[in-house]
Amino acid sequence: MNANGEAAKAVPELLSPQNARLLLDSTEAFLFDCDGVIWKGDKLIDGVSETLDLLRSKGKKLVFVTNNSSKSRRQYAEKFNSLGIAVSEDEIFSSSFAAAMFMKVNDFPQEKKVYVIGGEGILQELQLAGFTGLGGPEDGKKTVELKSNCFFEHDKSVGAVVVGIDPYINYYKLQYGTLCIRENPGCLFIATNLDAVGHMTDLQEWPGAGCMVGAISSSTEKKPMVVGKPSTFMMDFLLQKYHINTSKMCMVGDRLDTDILFGQNAGCKTLLVLSGVTTQAILQDPSNKIQPDYYTSKVSDFLRFI
Amino acid sequence: MNANGEAAKAVPELLSPQNARLLLDSTEAFLFDCDGVIWKGDKLIDGVSETLDLLRSKGKKLVFVTNNSSKSRRQYAEKFNSLGIAVSEDEIFSSSFAAAMFMKVNDFPQEKKVYVIGGEGILQELQLAGFTGLGGPEDGKKTVELKSNCFFEHDKSVGAVVVGIDPYINYYKLQYGTLCIRENPGCLFIATNLDAVGHMTDLQEWPGAGCMVGAISSSTEKKPMVVGKPSTFMMDFLLQKYHINTSKMCMVGDRLDTDILFGQNAGCKTLLVLSGVTTQAILQDPSNKIQPDYYTSKVSDFLRFI
Repeated sequence: MNANGEAAKAVPELLSPQNARLLLDSTEAFLFDCDGVIWKGDKLIDGVSETLDLLRSKGKKLVFVTNNSSKSRRQYAEKFNSLGIAVSEDEIFSSSFAAAMFMKVNDFPQEKKVYVIGGEGILQELQLAGFTGLGGPEDGKKTVELKSNCFFEHDKSVGAVVVGIDPYINYYKLQYGTLCIRENPGCLFIATNLDAVGHMTDLQEWPGAGCMVGAISSSTEKKPMVVGKPSTFMMDFLLQKYHINTSKMCMVGDRLDTDILFGQNAGCKTLLVLSGVTTQAILQDPSNKIQPDYYTSKVSDFLRFI
Repeated sequence: MNANGEAAKAVPELLSPQNARLLLDSTEAFLFDCDGVIWKGDKLIDGVSETLDLLRSKGKKLVFVTNNSSKSRRQYAEKFNSLGIAVSEDEIFSSSFAAAMFMKVNDFPQEKKVYVIGGEGILQELQLAGFTGLGGPEDGKKTVELKSNCFFEHDKSVGAVVVGIDPYINYYKLQYGTLCIRENPGCLFIATNLDAVGHMTDLQEWPGAGCMVGAISSSTEKKPMVVGKPSTFMMDFLLQKYHINTSKMCMVGDRLDTDILFGQNAGCKTLLVLSGVTTQAILQDPSNKIQPDYYTSKVSDFLRFI
């Protein structure tokens, strides 16, 4: 305890040949975030492929846990393979999958529909889980008529609105989602995640799902259920597949408030990489309350150290 | 004080021939909200024209205070006149005008630019106040390229982002506003208002400025300065023109959290009309903490009572 009676905050360790070896030995599964860790936009980050090969060669399980809901698990597997990395669908836990699983475990009635503000990935996962999705990319080109006597119709059988990152956000979708949540009795409001920004392209960050969720949250005056990181909802599915104690898992991510917090909430070890949205200055700013166990510049530092 | 030690909440009085006469006699200026009070979309609410004529004939000052930033004061005067009501520009206090005045009283440098997410009204008011606006309706048809090596450029001389209701919201504007606030040092974030929904058409409510502000607030992780109701910022300008004690003013509106709160914050009497977003059930719900002095179904009830 310090003079103010607060528990001393643990200081994260910079990854080194010594602690990298210890981390490797004590970890059975590495959980990787994707954007800012594996790739930026459509570009692999240097050395990722070789690092994943090394970890697999040491018998480590690899799992990919992404808040980006624009793709389904199948589409993510295709993206990995197109970048030359062999990853199977069931090693991927995306927030699009989490949204569909959330509805499944909560017995969402199959006769009700789901309105989607977001990408094709959410619609695909909903379909695989046996639900009927509406909206998504198809509504990206729709416009509204703000004229007297024009009534905007919405489907009264929509029982949930799922909101994720949507680069084709428009007023049509905002009104559709708002009407469902405000007017359909008991309609759920589910957010894939709340990330403020993300690497939609290699060179820049762009507004993330948090932006679209913030819009709907403000127009409906309701807070969503969040299924992506840092919520540990996805961990339940992960543990169904990998019967590994979470203390033997290490979450590797570039974001403090999603990846690192998710790992900590679940009882995993945590490694922050500085190849994405978090800089060393942000990590070490006195206002930052989330401290990973370890930090390093990028995942391929494992190659140097081991 | 009640048993819990709280001051007893005043119960609003239903307007009647007796208290309508008292209210009229004690009021020198009536401040009207527009959407849901004067009109819905482009349709006048019954009896408004005759009621305003009656109040003017009794020597009352009439002022129109609207959170809707889509039009400038001039455009609002044209809308009133097209609906057969003679109102002059300087009787109108819109949040588009308030945004421009906020920048003026805060000595916003004229060499800096202002990025607008919202309607033509904000751009017009900025121009009248001597500022250079960017964005607005012109950016409504712009699209983004989410590709490798595509860099989204923004103007580094933007020193403020003004966000209001925007039916042409898109990812281009969201990224532009987000980049200015995140990357241009000291860039202001100004919200015309935070209304969740509003009567964009006569038949329905639609997402309001709060929706667009919520989006930018979430992507930038910043809170805006709000210039519209319930902020009393506009009252200063109103008092410069009308040297009337606010206790001799009555704010007439359809929203508790903007109109009635604005009136109360400024020390005006308040009259809620049920012709807009607030129902009697909402008013009388135990969770409602904002109680007007009076309430009635619509402004033309004055005609019946006086």
